[in-house]
Amino acid sequence: MELWYTEKQTENYGITVKITNTLHTEKTEFQDLAMIETLQWGKMLVLDGMVMTTDKDEFVYHEMITHLAMNTHPNPKTALVVGGGDGGAIREILKYPSIEKAVLAEIDGRVIEVSREYLPQIAGKLDDPRVDVQVVDGIKYIHDNKDSFDVILVDSTEPVGPAVGLFARDFYQGIFEALKEDGIMVAQTESPFFNADLITRVYKDIAAIYPVTRYYTAAIPTYPSGLWSFTMGSKKYDPLEVDESKLIDPEGTKYYHKGMHKSVFNVPKFVMELLK
Amino acid sequence: MELWYTEKQTENYGITVKITNTLHTEKTEFQDLAMIETLQWGKMLVLDGMVMTTDKDEFVYHEMITHLAMNTHPNPKTALVVGGGDGGAIREILKYPSIEKAVLAEIDGRVIEVSREYLPQIAGKLDDPRVDVQVVDGIKYIHDNKDSFDVILVDSTEPVGPAVGLFARDFYQGIFEALKEDGIMVAQTESPFFNADLITRVYKDIAAIYPVTRYYTAAIPTYPSGLWSFTMGSKKYDPLEVDESKLIDPEGTKYYHKGMHKSVFNVPKFVMELLK
Repeated sequence: MELWYTEKQTENYGITVKITNTLHTEKTEFQDLAMIETLQWGKMLVLDGMVMTTDKDEFVYHEMITHLAMNTHPNPKTALVVGGGDGGAIREILKYPSIEKAVLAEIDGRVIEVSREYLPQIAGKLDDPRVDVQVVDGIKYIHDNKDSFDVILVDSTEPVGPAVGLFARDFYQGIFEALKEDGIMVAQTESPFFNADLITRVYKDIAAIYPVTRYYTAAIPTYPSGLWSFTMGSKKYDPLEVDESKLIDPEGTKYYHKGMHKSVFNVPKFVMELLK
Repeated sequence: MELWYTEKQTENYGITVKITNTLHTEKTEFQDLAMIETLQWGKMLVLDGMVMTTDKDEFVYHEMITHLAMNTHPNPKTALVVGGGDGGAIREILKYPSIEKAVLAEIDGRVIEVSREYLPQIAGKLDDPRVDVQVVDGIKYIHDNKDSFDVILVDSTEPVGPAVGLFARDFYQGIFEALKEDGIMVAQTESPFFNADLITRVYKDIAAIYPVTRYYTAAIPTYPSGLWSFTMGSKKYDPLEVDESKLIDPEGTKYYHKGMHKSVFNVPKFVMELLK
């Protein structure tokens, strides 16, 4: 008997993966949560039927949501991850020696607990003494912590269910206020192939608030279309203007290296058109 | 009733796409050929159960196999495409005003004919007077045409069945001899996520023959893992050393633009490791 898990990434298209086991399934207060064991990608965390992360390709997303902002800021001491309950972005943030405090603001505590149990190589750094794990609505946390962070990463699920508010202009304004005067934010902003309208809107919203707005992509096999995007809003520092000799090569990365720090912003032409 | 076509890209992973119709299926002399109508990607050409091209994302592959070589050569007059029976690479080659002759050497004439019928926006330029369509074994064609081409593109299927010989070191040596003294070749070289061993071997083989060897990637949603790669062997010109003011922006592209001409070679770190 063969068991396959199929995710419909759109109404008419999806990925399918052979599984050996469902390790855990539950309905949390916020969403359907599943941890499944797959042959191709190792363990796979699925929320509301959408692949969030896998053992084998998680490095792309976690490195790429983190290092463009962290390596652009010259001295990041405080960072906040909104969402990101699997702990992967926190793990990457801690690779910067300057970091003193990294806060995880995840609304669904069950995502954190299940990730700690099944994905220790991703979630293990949540136990670092510099990390403050908060089970809280990110929108409320942002509101209550003004002028506090050098870097804020919006590591959200897709813009349905609990994450809808994390794609709203008011939220990017709230992040602006929670950042210090030279802070940088990065939000995951879906697939250029499948989410063109959302990308155009979010880019426009962020550009209306932040002096520097940049957009880049990364290849994530288990995410819809395989091409994913991130939008950066920065109060002062421009990733395209950094002194490359000051960039670091964060330890143990598999996707990001400082040689790509500027080139990732050279996105395909049809994607450039979305940002006009 | 819903009809879905599923391609197993590996033993344990695949894509699945809703179809409305099978427009054409046949067993040619060389392979199983199917043209299917999908809701997500438009018409889809499938050879031996592997997606070759689709209406909606063909532009990525065809632009990216073509423009890095064509735009690096200062004055490409003659070009050869080995494989590529759908005509997409030929269409892109013809965007260079310097081109006088573009040869298509495709072993399976049925691929050309079915593409002409169902994919006219891809295959239509095969009727251009500068194009010479040859239904022939590419290996034989290369052998019979020494010192003849400025640019040669190896637009092959996967390295099974009729295309096995197109991934062999002898073939890259033959291409070297079919190129003029300052010629450039590019071969499609599969997915860095799924074909690591092949990429390492082909890169080493090409680097042993060509003075300049370069490797780059592009995001193609319907190809295995979504991240695809190309290996360039060049007798003289280095794409990283071209004068950017001399690059052209080929007409009507949707992925390639001259701004990415050098940055596409800044591949992810795990991919760099494959090339060592």
